[in-house]
Amino acid sequence: MLDKVSENHDVDALMLEIGRRAKAAARPLAIASTEQKNRALDAMANAIVSSKDTILAANAVDLDNAASSGLAASFLDRLTLTEERILAMAGGIREIAGLKDPVGDVIAAWDRPNGLQIERVRTPLGVIGVIYESRPNVTADAGALCLKSGNAVILRGGSDSAHSSHAIHACLVEGLLQAGLPEHAIQLVPITDRAAVGAMLGGLTGTIDVIVPRGGKSLVARVQAEARVPVFAHLEGLCHIYVDASSDVEMAKAIVVNSKMRRTGICGAAETLLVDSAAIGSHLMPILEALTEAGCEVRASPTVLKVFAGFKPATDEDWRTEYLDAIIAVAVVDGISGAIAHIGKYSSNHTEAVIADDPEVVERFFNEVDSAILLHNASTQFADGGEFGMGAEIGIATGKMHARGPVGVEQLTSFNYRVHGTGQIRP
Amino acid sequence: MLDKVSENHDVDALMLEIGRRAKAAARPLAIASTEQKNRALDAMANAIVSSKDTILAANAVDLDNAASSGLAASFLDRLTLTEERILAMAGGIREIAGLKDPVGDVIAAWDRPNGLQIERVRTPLGVIGVIYESRPNVTADAGALCLKSGNAVILRGGSDSAHSSHAIHACLVEGLLQAGLPEHAIQLVPITDRAAVGAMLGGLTGTIDVIVPRGGKSLVARVQAEARVPVFAHLEGLCHIYVDASSDVEMAKAIVVNSKMRRTGICGAAETLLVDSAAIGSHLMPILEALTEAGCEVRASPTVLKVFAGFKPATDEDWRTEYLDAIIAVAVVDGISGAIAHIGKYSSNHTEAVIADDPEVVERFFNEVDSAILLHNASTQFADGGEFGMGAEIGIATGKMHARGPVGVEQLTSFNYRVHGTGQIRP
Repeated sequence: MLDKVSENHDVDALMLEIGRRAKAAARPLAIASTEQKNRALDAMANAIVSSKDTILAANAVDLDNAASSGLAASFLDRLTLTEERILAMAGGIREIAGLKDPVGDVIAAWDRPNGLQIERVRTPLGVIGVIYESRPNVTADAGALCLKSGNAVILRGGSDSAHSSHAIHACLVEGLLQAGLPEHAIQLVPITDRAAVGAMLGGLTGTIDVIVPRGGKSLVARVQAEARVPVFAHLEGLCHIYVDASSDVEMAKAIVVNSKMRRTGICGAAETLLVDSAAIGSHLMPILEALTEAGCEVRASPTVLKVFAGFKPATDEDWRTEYLDAIIAVAVVDGISGAIAHIGKYSSNHTEAVIADDPEVVERFFNEVDSAILLHNASTQFADGGEFGMGAEIGIATGKMHARGPVGVEQLTSFNYRVHGTGQIRP
Repeated sequence: MLDKVSENHDVDALMLEIGRRAKAAARPLAIASTEQKNRALDAMANAIVSSKDTILAANAVDLDNAASSGLAASFLDRLTLTEERILAMAGGIREIAGLKDPVGDVIAAWDRPNGLQIERVRTPLGVIGVIYESRPNVTADAGALCLKSGNAVILRGGSDSAHSSHAIHACLVEGLLQAGLPEHAIQLVPITDRAAVGAMLGGLTGTIDVIVPRGGKSLVARVQAEARVPVFAHLEGLCHIYVDASSDVEMAKAIVVNSKMRRTGICGAAETLLVDSAAIGSHLMPILEALTEAGCEVRASPTVLKVFAGFKPATDEDWRTEYLDAIIAVAVVDGISGAIAHIGKYSSNHTEAVIADDPEVVERFFNEVDSAILLHNASTQFADGGEFGMGAEIGIATGKMHARGPVGVEQLTSFNYRVHGTGQIRP
């Protein structure tokens, strides 16, 4: 069925039609009640659970195709659905139903001397485009988050997961219809043509308000380079930890090891450790020993190598590398000023941590490091919408416009001003 | 001097150098204290007052050139500086100095069960590009607003006001230097080449964070079409007023006349009046009479013409026209649903007003009309940052991302998350 659509339609015309449908669905969705949206989400979760055999069968087709294409094991793992993963997907949708509805929230309210009462109220953004790789669960996550925030969404999943995504999408549409919401509120692009991505990046003639890419660096880089509409994304998380001489050694050890090693493959994992030159004698070796014991490879700057020559030397490339692996680059810096300078040069503006007891050091770090998330005496692995108490997130943004840091349902909204008068005219 | 620069430099190289300088100035500016920024603003205002003869002489050169080019009287008026206008410019800068500094404001703060304390804190955006037509005062306004919000700014003014802008800019730089701030915090593009605008719209290799166009529709349209970075702007203010049958006739009359006629040339002026079909007998004629008495031309829909055939008929083009003049298009609509449908079709998403006493009508208007500013029983001419109590504004934005409605110093900021821990690691 997917191929038939691809043969029969001109891609641009099809995409514009999808855009028109999304825009038409966006207005009724924007004024849908919280209860109605939650009813749809519950029905979606139920449909996913009761369709699990259909979803598994569709996934088997994708897995067969992928295996015969000789794709990597890690790719196949992300593509694979199991009964457990399907139940977790349904559970994720129910959690989103449980979040506070951001739409209609009064963000600020004030009165004017002439009696005008001004409110700033959250409204949906409109239409969100999500472009993702072959992770079928994103279909459910992204669809549910956009619905909860009152936005229509156009989902464009990876071609290798097309059958799985299609089966999951059918459950989402079932949920929309059961709650009386427009079926085009959540659309899955039915063709695998890459030109469909190009059309979305162009904004579908002003239809798409924001694009969220979910996937590896090459996907995000393409989206950031080509999109003609705003993008919520991070290209990479090259996270730094700075250990100041004023810090507690045991705390620094524990936080550095956790930041690097708890999960090495996430964007909040630390990639570079900066140690205060005044802490060489006290902090450096205990921390490097703890990292080594935890199975982490250390790539060391010349000053670190003077203390212990056994590490692999770091090259300039190491300061620019998001390893996403059990490797850390370590440099000695000249106190907080040196740390700020190094981070300013190499940071991806995602997440950085300072371990220090000196309040002046912390204040300078917080004021002078220009990243979305700054942590004091805590692990960089807390860089996550759930850990921030924001509920599920669609991603983490490193841009400075609109959404920065974790992007949850609140960040998927805009706002407008609502002014209540009693006949005021302007003199 | 301006021409010499233009002859000697490759435009792209010059613009990239301006971008590099702006970025270098942005970091010290981001951490400048409120007191230091205000000191610079006061020094700028003083420099403008004491340089008023120099500024007037520069303006005379611009006016001579413009007169010999045969430009329109309204254009020459906007270009003309007088001693009074120069003093008003200095006063405007002092008012901006008096505004609350948005940088460092804690927008939100909450604690997590694990003891992490999370703050969301306002930070500058970075580098702002302002592209404007030949209104010399924008040089001072925009420079001061960007400085107050901790941003570096690249100003590109219209070529016809080049000498005036240059003289004003020199005063701004004098203020920066007197307060010990980087002189490149406020740069004026020294060439009148149109390619300079193109370079700015491209973002100067990631240097410019946002562009604000100040000028007519053709300038804004070009910026919106070509910019590769976010833009804060409105293309037009096609503002609607809907008069419901539940409204007080006298109040409706006063608000409609004020919305249209107080100043017809501003973006918050009403352009289309929609009257409830249930109010034809009660409201329509008194309002149209009041408009006519005030000197407004009425362009009427067929239903309006049935009541009084003396008006000029409205064409479809009238519903799409921002007159910026003493002309109003008037239609009868089928209650609030008809009003919402008409506004949804023709609105520029800037400002709309509802005149009604029925709370259900007001609620539907506020929930279902998707514009930046919605007013109830008040004039559309209140669509202004000053009237909102936000202080000076750099413009009004109709986009839904980041800034919507009046763009003042707060809207020229971003934010980051600052997390205070006591050694937390993630389990």
